[in-house]
Amino acid sequence: MSISAESQTLEQQVQAFKALDEKIIHLGSILGLVEWDQKVMAPKKGRGLFAKAIGTLSTEAFKLTVSKEMGELVNQLSSPENSARLDDITRAQVRERKMEYDRSHLIPEDMYREYVVLTAEANDIWEEARNQADFSIFEPALVKIVEFKRKAAEIYGYQDHPYDALLDEFEPGLTVKVLDPLFARLRESSVDLLRRTQQSTSKPREDLFEQKYPIDVQKTFNREMLPIIGFDLDAGRLDETVHPFAQTINTGDVRITTRYVETNVRSALFGTIHEAGHGIYEQNIDASLEGTVLSTGASFGIHESQSRFLENMVGRSEAFWKYFYKGLQSAFPEQLGTVQLVDFYRAINRVQPSLIRVEADELTYNLHIMLRYEIEKALIGGDIEVKDLPAIWNQKVEDYLGIRPANDREGVLQDVHWSFGGFGYFPSYSLGNLYAAQILHTIEQQVPNLYEAIEQGDFDTVQTWLHAQIHQYGKLYTPEELILKVTGEPLNADYLVDYLEQKYSRIYNL
Amino acid sequence: MSISAESQTLEQQVQAFKALDEKIIHLGSILGLVEWDQKVMAPKKGRGLFAKAIGTLSTEAFKLTVSKEMGELVNQLSSPENSARLDDITRAQVRERKMEYDRSHLIPEDMYREYVVLTAEANDIWEEARNQADFSIFEPALVKIVEFKRKAAEIYGYQDHPYDALLDEFEPGLTVKVLDPLFARLRESSVDLLRRTQQSTSKPREDLFEQKYPIDVQKTFNREMLPIIGFDLDAGRLDETVHPFAQTINTGDVRITTRYVETNVRSALFGTIHEAGHGIYEQNIDASLEGTVLSTGASFGIHESQSRFLENMVGRSEAFWKYFYKGLQSAFPEQLGTVQLVDFYRAINRVQPSLIRVEADELTYNLHIMLRYEIEKALIGGDIEVKDLPAIWNQKVEDYLGIRPANDREGVLQDVHWSFGGFGYFPSYSLGNLYAAQILHTIEQQVPNLYEAIEQGDFDTVQTWLHAQIHQYGKLYTPEELILKVTGEPLNADYLVDYLEQKYSRIYNL
Repeated sequence: MSISAESQTLEQQVQAFKALDEKIIHLGSILGLVEWDQKVMAPKKGRGLFAKAIGTLSTEAFKLTVSKEMGELVNQLSSPENSARLDDITRAQVRERKMEYDRSHLIPEDMYREYVVLTAEANDIWEEARNQADFSIFEPALVKIVEFKRKAAEIYGYQDHPYDALLDEFEPGLTVKVLDPLFARLRESSVDLLRRTQQSTSKPREDLFEQKYPIDVQKTFNREMLPIIGFDLDAGRLDETVHPFAQTINTGDVRITTRYVETNVRSALFGTIHEAGHGIYEQNIDASLEGTVLSTGASFGIHESQSRFLENMVGRSEAFWKYFYKGLQSAFPEQLGTVQLVDFYRAINRVQPSLIRVEADELTYNLHIMLRYEIEKALIGGDIEVKDLPAIWNQKVEDYLGIRPANDREGVLQDVHWSFGGFGYFPSYSLGNLYAAQILHTIEQQVPNLYEAIEQGDFDTVQTWLHAQIHQYGKLYTPEELILKVTGEPLNADYLVDYLEQKYSRIYNL
Repeated sequence: MSISAESQTLEQQVQAFKALDEKIIHLGSILGLVEWDQKVMAPKKGRGLFAKAIGTLSTEAFKLTVSKEMGELVNQLSSPENSARLDDITRAQVRERKMEYDRSHLIPEDMYREYVVLTAEANDIWEEARNQADFSIFEPALVKIVEFKRKAAEIYGYQDHPYDALLDEFEPGLTVKVLDPLFARLRESSVDLLRRTQQSTSKPREDLFEQKYPIDVQKTFNREMLPIIGFDLDAGRLDETVHPFAQTINTGDVRITTRYVETNVRSALFGTIHEAGHGIYEQNIDASLEGTVLSTGASFGIHESQSRFLENMVGRSEAFWKYFYKGLQSAFPEQLGTVQLVDFYRAINRVQPSLIRVEADELTYNLHIMLRYEIEKALIGGDIEVKDLPAIWNQKVEDYLGIRPANDREGVLQDVHWSFGGFGYFPSYSLGNLYAAQILHTIEQQVPNLYEAIEQGDFDTVQTWLHAQIHQYGKLYTPEELILKVTGEPLNADYLVDYLEQKYSRIYNL
């Protein structure tokens, strides 16, 4: 076989590009591991010192993503004639690295460095403000962060709304124009459904969880549940942290954490199932994508769809507990021995407007997201200013949930996201719910006995479907391409609206 | 104050050198953490994939140590006129980085890369050979490793013996000329003392440890012992591995491991104390050295002196157990409730020739090292060849210990060191014992109530002395300088010979 000079050059470019991509992935994999370690394992006296080492390595990794070499490679490999000659995986790798390069290399180095320092400091300031329940402490730092984000949006560029430029980081291709009607539909139906559940006279019990559930027993139950629902403990770990999270090192090493609360057995259970959803996704990405930028979830929203699907559509289903409830009763005979399955099922699905997002139920959760989305959009668009936030926040909580924060700690200061500049991140959570419901609809058509299988403890059926349709592809497809490929249509809010309506109508006898 | 152009240049060079040194230390700190993680925490399916990421980062770190920039900086900063103008810390940093640069940059890149692959494969081959108890499986790989090491010794350079070039990596400045008489003195006296203990009619009990000691109870005891003897659990961790080791991340994060064997309570106890000795050293290096090449032990031998001192001179002393034995009896009332302290003390110091180095007692341990030293020296010097090793090994074991391995697994294949090319490493273990005895002699003169303090559970006295005299300095001094500074004379085998003679004369009523 002879290779022409031109294709040799292309081959060489591809080789150089793949080596660079892999190098960044290797450093990222190491950074992921050490960040996990510092949260889960590291003794307290070493963390301050180690932060410097992390800073050194993440700077090296970042420099590679915006290096001249990367710029030249992604620009050459994405030209129409070259792109046409690449295989699907390489083309998608180029797409992702180009997107990242295009966004990041335009930010002036001084501006970036200032921002890194700013957000590093802002986290402590936010914590202090939250502890004092005083937004004015956080306000000056947040003003600067919003300034940076507004500037960054202009530099990144957008078609219609500056917030699109920020959304793009978390959900490539998503815009305000697309999101606004989806969220509007969901908000209206949720507010209405919430009102009806609150008026219902047939409410789930409140008292079930107000008992002591020994943590050792909780740990054993959670650990034994994981492999059954599809999380491979030989390719991952389960540990304990105050804020549960999932961290991928590689497809053979995906680490999740959960939080045990003695007086709240639900906290660890659903935290574990949620993080397992993230983890199972990453464990099942195809080996051909390993060591490339594609060996991760398609987007934040798609990732969240997998955790929400497992947590809510599976973990909060009656079928799930038809299988697991006897085990839970044996583990906690004093607490649950006399509680009927149906009462337990209704109790874990109890709807209760509350002020704190991370404690919200499946229905009101999206309302927490809506108000953040609306505020972020207006803030980045210049329609409101940072100083207005507490008042706007409290008003929106009252409009959507019918309750009002007593102070900034349980209001505008509750989330960490703005302190690290994560504008555009919040919508991912509700996108996850929207994607999950649409995917559920498709699975139920293709696998009619889905919930019967789950009742029997057969999680293979659902996981095999998810692996084949979603997990294996990693980031090969954009989220838009993926949801179309999997469900046959673009993202559509009807599925989540219908799912919530049906579920809560039954539970609340509406 | 005005700065001349020349000193400005020196300042700039120092600044560039320190930044480069720190960068290498940061990457090394991260590599240390991830290697610890892969041994202690990582799920099995991820390790193969992660090895590639480790390879990428360690290559980056290695490149920096032999970079043109490093070469220019260490050469300029070590010129007599520049060196005289540096502070002590900077001068020592330059000394260490220059030594490393001079050794490593001369190895041709191809040769180095071949060697990395060779030793990576050799480990698996060695494991296979050991499992099969068949040296011939390992022989071809070992031949190549020895070839590399012989070539490397020529490239590194030496005055008298090629083995000096390899010793230098672990104990800078040490030569065969210095080591031969030290080891000869120790060998002769140890063989003689061993013979006398074996002939004694007053021997320690053998049966004490042949009982079951529940591992949970062992864990609690070991963990509670650590802070008492000086290991700071807020600046470190204790975990469990088959092969105990100590890994420093930084002075605020030093991780040690131990091994629990249900039928052998000694295994974890002395493993923990030994590794704590390494760990306490690293935790107490002065903050001014943090983030530099000097923030570690002075040499492998000096490091080992700190672990051996704590394990043997402290942990196997009667005073130590006068303090801890009641606690151990309470933890294991059935096993030790009726055993007298003196019998326990004698039993933990029982001398018994055995085939496996890592299980050897304090006296015969050095004989295991001697035979390895003699074999390595002859092999690197070209006096013997790889094929001769099993026969020579078995003969030396018989000469020194009076027993003979039944096969290669309990003979020449027992240690991992040669499979990673660690020729020159073994002497460090006995050097540690020699240094430790010499240091003990000095402490006893300066702190006459040393063992009375230990009896009272006062470990501050001994640790404060060690911190002030040894730990704080890290690698600021060479091992030669340090032992002279601390004890007033160069390394002298008499101290260990006398220590062993006195200790075992008492225990065995010689």
